[in-house]
Amino acid sequence: MIYLDNAATEGYKPAAVQSAVLAAMKVCANPGRSGHRLSLACAERVLACRELLSDLFGGYGYERVAFTRSCTEALNLALIGVLEKGDHVITTCLEHNSVLRPLHVLQEAGVISYDVVPLKNGHIDPASISSLVKKNTRMCVVTTASNVTGEAPDLKEIRKHLPERVLLVADGAQGGGHLPIHMREWGLDALALAGHKGLHAIQGAAALLFSERMEPRPLLFGGTGSESFRLGMPSFYPDRLEAGTLSYPAICSLYEGALIVKAHRKEDAERLFELTAVLHAALTPLNGCKLYFVPNPCGIAAFSYEKISSEELAGILSEKYDIAVRGGLHCAPLVHKALGTFPDGLVRASFSPAQSLKEVDILARALKEITCF
Amino acid sequence: MIYLDNAATEGYKPAAVQSAVLAAMKVCANPGRSGHRLSLACAERVLACRELLSDLFGGYGYERVAFTRSCTEALNLALIGVLEKGDHVITTCLEHNSVLRPLHVLQEAGVISYDVVPLKNGHIDPASISSLVKKNTRMCVVTTASNVTGEAPDLKEIRKHLPERVLLVADGAQGGGHLPIHMREWGLDALALAGHKGLHAIQGAAALLFSERMEPRPLLFGGTGSESFRLGMPSFYPDRLEAGTLSYPAICSLYEGALIVKAHRKEDAERLFELTAVLHAALTPLNGCKLYFVPNPCGIAAFSYEKISSEELAGILSEKYDIAVRGGLHCAPLVHKALGTFPDGLVRASFSPAQSLKEVDILARALKEITCF
Repeated sequence: MIYLDNAATEGYKPAAVQSAVLAAMKVCANPGRSGHRLSLACAERVLACRELLSDLFGGYGYERVAFTRSCTEALNLALIGVLEKGDHVITTCLEHNSVLRPLHVLQEAGVISYDVVPLKNGHIDPASISSLVKKNTRMCVVTTASNVTGEAPDLKEIRKHLPERVLLVADGAQGGGHLPIHMREWGLDALALAGHKGLHAIQGAAALLFSERMEPRPLLFGGTGSESFRLGMPSFYPDRLEAGTLSYPAICSLYEGALIVKAHRKEDAERLFELTAVLHAALTPLNGCKLYFVPNPCGIAAFSYEKISSEELAGILSEKYDIAVRGGLHCAPLVHKALGTFPDGLVRASFSPAQSLKEVDILARALKEITCF
Repeated sequence: MIYLDNAATEGYKPAAVQSAVLAAMKVCANPGRSGHRLSLACAERVLACRELLSDLFGGYGYERVAFTRSCTEALNLALIGVLEKGDHVITTCLEHNSVLRPLHVLQEAGVISYDVVPLKNGHIDPASISSLVKKNTRMCVVTTASNVTGEAPDLKEIRKHLPERVLLVADGAQGGGHLPIHMREWGLDALALAGHKGLHAIQGAAALLFSERMEPRPLLFGGTGSESFRLGMPSFYPDRLEAGTLSYPAICSLYEGALIVKAHRKEDAERLFELTAVLHAALTPLNGCKLYFVPNPCGIAAFSYEKISSEELAGILSEKYDIAVRGGLHCAPLVHKALGTFPDGLVRASFSPAQSLKEVDILARALKEITCF
């Protein structure tokens, strides 16, 4: 099978990542839970991973890196763990349900109100965001890159259009590992990362990086290996946000994956840009095929074919051509409404930097065959 | 290093578990997120794991198995996700902070009140539990086995002492995989499981099994791959509780680990009983060494030595003898208060069924040397 669903999860993990996970299964202890050499060695690796992530993304130090099970959990911490009664939030129509659903539940509970920035000429316009700022606007939540179109809002520019007091939270699920995100340079107060996409880690590895301006409250409570005598959670980060045993194999995989990103992000992003550019050129002439992407460094390419629904087209590609893509709404309903592709959705092909032009060609030929049929 | 900290996390994963994780890293998709063959195959494995866990623990069907990142998250779902304003809860002094801290935060927020059953002659007496039942008692939360002493409360008997309306929630972190837990026969409404201890899985694999009498509310909100058009979470289980990408490698490891438990639990529990029995006999004659365990099928053995603090003794065992045990409070402060070992704690040695009597002997000799010094 040709796997072009890397925006859902990277299909094949690099050898260094596999090897780190394997090592963690052969000699494993619970980091931060015991004082013996093995547990301390694991705790050191966990600390090294925090430092690496903070370094890689221009973060605010290792103690402001909380490991989570998913980018979704990280976003929940940044939203539900931070927002308070009466707060107003600005977000965009590009967002994933990992942002929209927490905001929705907070709104339904009467805690917050929020406004959604629409597309302007197909893009998120930073000036449109500033026009939505109210007196009680506490936070602006924006994706680093749409998981449907690859569109990457200009976060540095958005920061400039926001009053200083407004917290800027970025969903790094798709942009993390691909874009040159730098929290301090871009003025981000929080960055939620999914390890298993652009960071080459396994599913279950994720993190929230956050600034000194944010003091997230924990959403889960339990043992931390620290201050065990207290019935409350420890007061210090990251322990305060990390109840329960961390997934050491996942963190080891994230460490290795982040090292790869540190060494190869730029060339890998260029590779993904090239793959999507070649696909774009190949699909442009196809009759009835409409493209919802431009070449991009996140490796995302969404399109539709007027005669077949997105799910059906994805099904044909899987069944007849052994190509894995994703149809439907991609857990991001508002962007499809903005694009006019709701409720049918789009077909999304998404690449990893390990893939070749040959795979683009096979997809393009399959689509040519289908659309010329 | 001789690793005797398996109650913190099993140190060495069985070959089948390692192999399943490796396979998941070589060919991986996002289960439940796409319609292509690979994603469907992953979703089938996830479903098979739900069915296996429900079968193994006498649960209430696959749709009542929610995967979590940790047993702590599972307990948070069963407590914070279920309890309501005015509820009264009964728990025991054996509990881990994964139970005590969620109850504490709910009490501090004025949501619930709770009572803690003390030890009676060193055990949890089911009749003492029934004496604490109030009109508004909604839930009783009890561990399947203490992570400090291995003491396993008689949950079947506790169920008999509770009014039918009271939900019985069991913390299976230490008992899961070792004890013959059967939710329906024992009358359990919820069972929280840690994959990485008795179930041989990697850290990051855990689950909450729950009965039709419980309708846990989600604590995290986000994409589920289902009903993506809705801004609220899906109404059906398990999707309602599983926002964000599941850790497919972790779930594959849990599947293999659960298969091992299904085939070998009885003999492995006998093995652990034997290991702790032999250690018990070897430590009994040591002057100044006090034992806080009896032979048990969870493989847990806690003890103290009057001349050295628990952390110091654990440190000597690590540094001088290369033996990994855990000193301190083990995230379970109340049991240490009940045993009179607060705040110094105890040294806990904990075994896996793969270990041999030789390792018990090495620990016993080391302790003999230390105590005779």
